[in-house]
Amino acid sequence: MATAGCRDRPMTESLDRAAPAVLTIDLDAIAANWRLLCDRVAPAACAAVVKADAYGLGMDRVAPALRATGCGTFFVAQLEEGLALRRLLPDADIHVLNGPLAGTEAAFAAARLVPVLNSLEQMARWRESGSSGSCDLHLDTGMSRLGLPPEDVATLVADPTPLDGLDIDLLMSHLACADEAGHPMNANQLRDFEAWTARLATAGIGGRRCFANSSGIFLGAAGHFDLTRPGIALYGGNPTPESPNPMAQVVRLQGKILQVRRIDSPQTVGYGATHPACGPTRIATVAAGYADGYPRSLGGRATGFIGDHRVPAVGRISMDLTTFDVTDIPETLCRPGAAIDLIGPRNPVDDVAAAAGTIGYEILTALGRRYHRHYLGGSGR
Amino acid sequence: MATAGCRDRPMTESLDRAAPAVLTIDLDAIAANWRLLCDRVAPAACAAVVKADAYGLGMDRVAPALRATGCGTFFVAQLEEGLALRRLLPDADIHVLNGPLAGTEAAFAAARLVPVLNSLEQMARWRESGSSGSCDLHLDTGMSRLGLPPEDVATLVADPTPLDGLDIDLLMSHLACADEAGHPMNANQLRDFEAWTARLATAGIGGRRCFANSSGIFLGAAGHFDLTRPGIALYGGNPTPESPNPMAQVVRLQGKILQVRRIDSPQTVGYGATHPACGPTRIATVAAGYADGYPRSLGGRATGFIGDHRVPAVGRISMDLTTFDVTDIPETLCRPGAAIDLIGPRNPVDDVAAAAGTIGYEILTALGRRYHRHYLGGSGR
Repeated sequence: MATAGCRDRPMTESLDRAAPAVLTIDLDAIAANWRLLCDRVAPAACAAVVKADAYGLGMDRVAPALRATGCGTFFVAQLEEGLALRRLLPDADIHVLNGPLAGTEAAFAAARLVPVLNSLEQMARWRESGSSGSCDLHLDTGMSRLGLPPEDVATLVADPTPLDGLDIDLLMSHLACADEAGHPMNANQLRDFEAWTARLATAGIGGRRCFANSSGIFLGAAGHFDLTRPGIALYGGNPTPESPNPMAQVVRLQGKILQVRRIDSPQTVGYGATHPACGPTRIATVAAGYADGYPRSLGGRATGFIGDHRVPAVGRISMDLTTFDVTDIPETLCRPGAAIDLIGPRNPVDDVAAAAGTIGYEILTALGRRYHRHYLGGSGR
Repeated sequence: MATAGCRDRPMTESLDRAAPAVLTIDLDAIAANWRLLCDRVAPAACAAVVKADAYGLGMDRVAPALRATGCGTFFVAQLEEGLALRRLLPDADIHVLNGPLAGTEAAFAAARLVPVLNSLEQMARWRESGSSGSCDLHLDTGMSRLGLPPEDVATLVADPTPLDGLDIDLLMSHLACADEAGHPMNANQLRDFEAWTARLATAGIGGRRCFANSSGIFLGAAGHFDLTRPGIALYGGNPTPESPNPMAQVVRLQGKILQVRRIDSPQTVGYGATHPACGPTRIATVAAGYADGYPRSLGGRATGFIGDHRVPAVGRISMDLTTFDVTDIPETLCRPGAAIDLIGPRNPVDDVAAAAGTIGYEILTALGRRYHRHYLGGSGR
């Protein structure tokens, strides 16, 4: 399947005059990714995870675009994200993964946010708040992070009183190793989730089951249950890292060249004088740096593109600037004002992440505030 | 000298109810740091670098606080930062380090922003724009990033026509290795800057000289010239990494505990199942993760504090969550809602950065948008 690339069209002309760098986000690609996942998990339903500002891409644009495509169920991490999403989507089902902090129960109820209850303590508080709104139960099958451990599940099976009066929508769990298809945790977590939800059912505790994240969707239909909840795959990250990426790319990031420095006598480039320029060299300095979320760990490891020409980042990444070696590139292509793809069709998010020693999720959520953001498509507004 | 710590007072009680994490920024500490640097560089003047949203701490609060303390000259990186700062400080001198992108010259002039001209090309454009506003010249003595190389300096000395009619305020350069006091680049750059500015003077090209950044200030008075421009030191970063930090800490970041997971039988913690919990263990899960700029590279390497108790981060950092091993901490101190210092008096920014394999600058500029921000002091507003 093709990794479409964020619409490989010439962008340079349209770069805003004052923009140091332009971030293009393809809402139609996000919608297409959601529909692809929908088709894959049917007859199970497909939600969308839009926490962390829709993985850095702007929940205010992404969520309405998904809603217009037919997505009715959304997951965020925190109350305030849920409140913001409620303002955008009055009619959506909104689930809040972190559950309520003490004293925030009424705010959840007022905005019809569904809290994921992760502990007996959260459960007790939600019950005491007297809310009639629905809630989810999170069973921890292997993350040891949030959710009910097996002992608490057993406690509830033995005595479901803590759930009296609660309107449970989802029974959930979360995969720890879904991106490694062969990891034994996957089968273990699936087995436990099925067993625990079956035991809860014997005690009269039921709900729709929700288990698979992006990678989990590709582990097979046994984990799809009633509702799936992809995140990273919507935004172009590869949910099957051991195989080609089935998702369309969503993001393109183009940094503008401020200056091309010609170096004739040997000298060094950047902080720490770590990069020697020995022969005649041309260095293009681009107006984006680690303060824009272009990670410092990319220093000497990033690859930019000018059209089809590969240009290596050299020296350390600065706070506001990155230097690329453009010695081998025709001068006409790298004049001040021209753009270098920092993320693009030839260097997609996952590749940039690998060079930085991290994952695409972190590259996306770190995307900076100084970029000019252009959205493509998105009939949602 | 004491590293004061961001006012080591109990904060837990005051944490906003809905806040997943609270970022406290001590404006008085920033002001005190600026005054300390002022005293150190006198009779040279002292500016403040507030680019990248004042290193992530909020230019809208930091700049007015510094202005109220007596700082009249500011540096930003980009035009749009300059425009925002002009709205905050109608009477300040504002210099824009990246200089004008083509077509933005009029916007600089209209807002009385002083562009740092980094190339003959920027110089020609500024001159052609006919602006009567002042400008700076940046001489590149060793960064190979922005600024005039020696050949261009020689060109100007031979024929200063490109500067005809320009009102030059500053002659600048930027140190590459100032944080390594013994690095030979420091003396070389200082020597070149003095020589080149002297040669320019013979051609009638003069201006105030501005050379030292935070670390440069501590390399000695020879580099102070007319104006210094500290950045990171204002925000508590150590400008003398080989010695104790002379600056007051500015930032405290407290993440709230959502849940404490008790583990009795052996299992793993977090994504990838990388952290084994072998004996009885308690894991406190905090509502901050890499989407908040708490870097993923801190997984298994970060140290949090609950009061004076050191707690190690275990497993991978998640997008919205981080897990700490609190097995050895009294239960009364780590209940849901209690705070763990992610950055604080006992784990200042530079320590967190070292654990993450980066520098304090990147930790600060990555500070997330979901934190509730509390500002201490700052008579500037």
